[in-house]
Amino acid sequence: MILRLGYDIQFQIPAPVTMVTLLTVHPSRIADLRAPDELRVEPPTVVESFLDSFGNGCARFLAQPGPLRLSNSTLIYDSGHPDPISPDAREVPVNELPHDAIRYLYNSRYCEVDRFSMIAVELFGDHPKGWSRVQAVCDWVHTKVSFGYQYARPTKSALDVYTERFGVCRDFQHLAVTMCRALNIPARYATGYLGDIAVPPSLDAMDFSAWFEVYLEDRWWAFDARNNRPRIGRVLMATGRDASDVAITTSFGMTTLTHFKVVTEPVPQGQATAV
Amino acid sequence: MILRLGYDIQFQIPAPVTMVTLLTVHPSRIADLRAPDELRVEPPTVVESFLDSFGNGCARFLAQPGPLRLSNSTLIYDSGHPDPISPDAREVPVNELPHDAIRYLYNSRYCEVDRFSMIAVELFGDHPKGWSRVQAVCDWVHTKVSFGYQYARPTKSALDVYTERFGVCRDFQHLAVTMCRALNIPARYATGYLGDIAVPPSLDAMDFSAWFEVYLEDRWWAFDARNNRPRIGRVLMATGRDASDVAITTSFGMTTLTHFKVVTEPVPQGQATAV
Amino acid sequence: MILRLGYDIQFQIPAPVTMVTLLTVHPSRIADLRAPDELRVEPPTVVESFLDSFGNGCARFLAQPGPLRLSNSTLIYDSGHPDPISPDAREVPVNELPHDAIRYLYNSRYCEVDRFSMIAVELFGDHPKGWSRVQAVCDWVHTKVSFGYQYARPTKSALDVYTERFGVCRDFQHLAVTMCRALNIPARYATGYLGDIAVPPSLDAMDFSAWFEVYLEDRWWAFDARNNRPRIGRVLMATGRDASDVAITTSFGMTTLTHFKVVTEPVPQGQATAV
Amino acid sequence: MILRLGYDIQFQIPAPVTMVTLLTVHPSRIADLRAPDELRVEPPTVVESFLDSFGNGCARFLAQPGPLRLSNSTLIYDSGHPDPISPDAREVPVNELPHDAIRYLYNSRYCEVDRFSMIAVELFGDHPKGWSRVQAVCDWVHTKVSFGYQYARPTKSALDVYTERFGVCRDFQHLAVTMCRALNIPARYATGYLGDIAVPPSLDAMDFSAWFEVYLEDRWWAFDARNNRPRIGRVLMATGRDASDVAITTSFGMTTLTHFKVVTEPVPQGQATAV
Repeated sequence: MILRLGYDIQFQIPAPVTMVTLLTVHPSRIADLRAPDELRVEPPTVVESFLDSFGNGCARFLAQPGPLRLSNSTLIYDSGHPDPISPDAREVPVNELPHDAIRYLYNSRYCEVDRFSMIAVELFGDHPKGWSRVQAVCDWVHTKVSFGYQYARPTKSALDVYTERFGVCRDFQHLAVTMCRALNIPARYATGYLGDIAVPPSLDAMDFSAWFEVYLEDRWWAFDARNNRPRIGRVLMATGRDASDVAITTSFGMTTLTHFKVVTEPVPQGQATAV
Repeated sequence: MILRLGYDIQFQIPAPVTMVTLLTVHPSRIADLRAPDELRVEPPTVVESFLDSFGNGCARFLAQPGPLRLSNSTLIYDSGHPDPISPDAREVPVNELPHDAIRYLYNSRYCEVDRFSMIAVELFGDHPKGWSRVQAVCDWVHTKVSFGYQYARPTKSALDVYTERFGVCRDFQHLAVTMCRALNIPARYATGYLGDIAVPPSLDAMDFSAWFEVYLEDRWWAFDARNNRPRIGRVLMATGRDASDVAITTSFGMTTLTHFKVVTEPVPQGQATAV
Repeated sequence: MILRLGYDIQFQIPAPVTMVTLLTVHPSRIADLRAPDELRVEPPTVVESFLDSFGNGCARFLAQPGPLRLSNSTLIYDSGHPDPISPDAREVPVNELPHDAIRYLYNSRYCEVDRFSMIAVELFGDHPKGWSRVQAVCDWVHTKVSFGYQYARPTKSALDVYTERFGVCRDFQHLAVTMCRALNIPARYATGYLGDIAVPPSLDAMDFSAWFEVYLEDRWWAFDARNNRPRIGRVLMATGRDASDVAITTSFGMTTLTHFKVVTEPVPQGQATAV
Repeated sequence: MILRLGYDIQFQIPAPVTMVTLLTVHPSRIADLRAPDELRVEPPTVVESFLDSFGNGCARFLAQPGPLRLSNSTLIYDSGHPDPISPDAREVPVNELPHDAIRYLYNSRYCEVDRFSMIAVELFGDHPKGWSRVQAVCDWVHTKVSFGYQYARPTKSALDVYTERFGVCRDFQHLAVTMCRALNIPARYATGYLGDIAVPPSLDAMDFSAWFEVYLEDRWWAFDARNNRPRIGRVLMATGRDASDVAITTSFGMTTLTHFKVVTEPVPQGQATAV
């Protein structure tokens, strides 16, 4: 299947401000693109592209005072298969993990692993190791935390989610990520497009989505403590330790968001043309 | 001058546990070594070496039950000059920073930049930009926080230090790092040996030391909010976002520390032989 | 002037639950009532009245499953004068405070005085003591914190407000109360009706209001870090250490709020009849 | 049996400072005194006595610069019986609690009931109500938290104890108190002398002790999550919501503690004379 991806994000800029964005698909998905995936900045601005230390495609530019528009529209091939499930995938002993996976066992701003070491063991320490333990973490978070847009706040950490039991997408993933790390299972935060033809369109489809990835057996696997069932049409944009690493836009100064729209939709056969 | 560096760290291990250590000098100092810098593990164990995502030299091994000893003794050339001071070094606009410096503007576990954005601006926003502003941050932290070994705790964050006003070496640096980042100045945590012939030997010399580095003008510079004056004989081992990234030893399971000794001392001329 | 006061608060109750309410005017205002001030509970329920340890009028009852309505409509005489201002009112040394005022110097759930002792002194320690110092605290909080209903959350403490700089009415008062206590000035949280003929009716008038009281010279004075100017028509319902002590309704079990309306309005002359 | 109680607490006072102390036995134990129980202040100072809002005996005085000594030595009759156990004592529905017990269901500085409402229910919600549920809370805290004097810090709350799992006496009680309140069981913090002839003298006996009280059936009962077994010789000094309410000494300004000794010991028959 072909998915149309795009966004239209607008700001009002009061004074010159540097912005860093993660608004292109992840390098691992570039081969699937069926149209250019290019951040358009209006008014035209010099944009510098680079890879961050996690391997995500970033852009940096200096936004001038006035309105600023970031937009894109592209096409990508997707298998149309739901997230793979591999119940036999094993946890990898820390001693055998790829070196790069080790950093996803550590603390980060919104994932206070050091404060969950006993809590996670008490909840999941007796569970058989492997895929089903990660699934048990997802089930627990999915059941215990209630979703609501009004519960979003930028400083909310996994410990806040654990005690308040309310949150948005990113909060569910932060809590699950933290529990996994506290069990010595590498886990990283993921963000991207999520368009799913298997479910009715919803408000969620209008925003980017957050999920998380866990290293089991020999690779990273997608999990989603918010939706907690396999989804079709995840298009990864960035992974990192937590939401702080992979903010879609980071502004080093004042900006006011005035418009925000994301499109993720399957393209009817024969109509696959990027706008 | 030649410094003798070394340590003798001993644990009791109740059950097999993977450890990751940062116990060799930083790759940037390897050319200065005058003797091999090799982590000795007793009993003999297979040790795997690798560079982490920050460029630090790491070792990983599986410790078996029983006593474990990590030790080393080496020699290194040091200029004997105190930390350089460059009052004219300018802050670099975020738009012109090297890409790799950008990550040191973000949140990390012990540096909650998002909770300090207004506090830092209120305290230091009117200060002239550049070296003297970083020095003002150091002066503030050095003056406002009191040192005491009894105030150490593993979960202490910059916000805790800011409200409690007591801490150990790492706490001073975390608070200063967070203030700098909140001012859009890249700052990273540093750990290493610190032997200073200019001051009387002290208890401090028996431990590794923490300081921090700030990116100004065209390079990283050492600052130290705890001592707050140029020191001779810093030998860098690792840098990262905060102490969580650069723990000297990280154990993925239970261990009990039974002995801890660090040596950092100038070698009298003609006696430079590693033991 | 005569104010009409009233409320209509409705819940859906899933299972029997005890509720404690502070829904009558404070005992200090009873002499001003011009009509009965009586909590009506529907369906009819045995209601027990008592004074809590702060001297507030409380009611306790067991709500049965189904809809629950708490309502009231009464009339009260009000001087029509704005909050008194007394620039010469002095701070009272702790040694000379009335015994009952001492408890309002201590920590409470949302007022972490212990974490503000240095912050408050740094911000206001050099300010001349007395009324103007309390006013300086109000000015600071009023200026530094932005109001927004979306920033409400039940667990938000003064430290959260201080770092996040967003909040609702109660958050402004918690931060100001905490700063005052950290300066050894007794401060307590207040809640009640606020109808002000001097300002256009607003959304605020539809809710109960929060302000705070400070002990200076020889009595308690109303301050309001949210509005930060004298207001007409405050009708006190309850005072306590913080919002946790004086919640309008506390439910010891699950309840769902389905309707909430508060009326506070001046009664045109000749029409003063309670409905 | 007769217990000798006493203390010798010394400070260095840099500038005049008001102190409030809770250094006499609780009014409920006055009838048991066999010698005067009088706070001696040296140098002689005007001391004002009063009861706080919890019913504790307080003293307030202005300490002058220089050394300050607070001391006492008295005798008290004690039954010699261990803490009573009443396995059949029932939890009292909130609707039937004495009015004064209700406040011990609420939040306080170190007992964030609002952040434990789900945690407590998950851990103890299925446990049969009554005495054994409170005992289950004590068992849990006693088992999960490790004691160590080095873990004391003044700002530590129940949530900190729950995540860190280390603490001193007061930390154990704060966590247990918070769990009980979150289960709608009134619980209050208690402090006093603890001399126990049934156990060998220990370092603990040199300090005041903390325990907590729970309202079951028709009265308050002593529980102790730190020792977690009935003890002989508790002499209550003060109860309150948490340690912030019942600090032995509260100084409204700088003081330096220079000496601290507490005596709680049984008096051999025939020797009961206060020194």
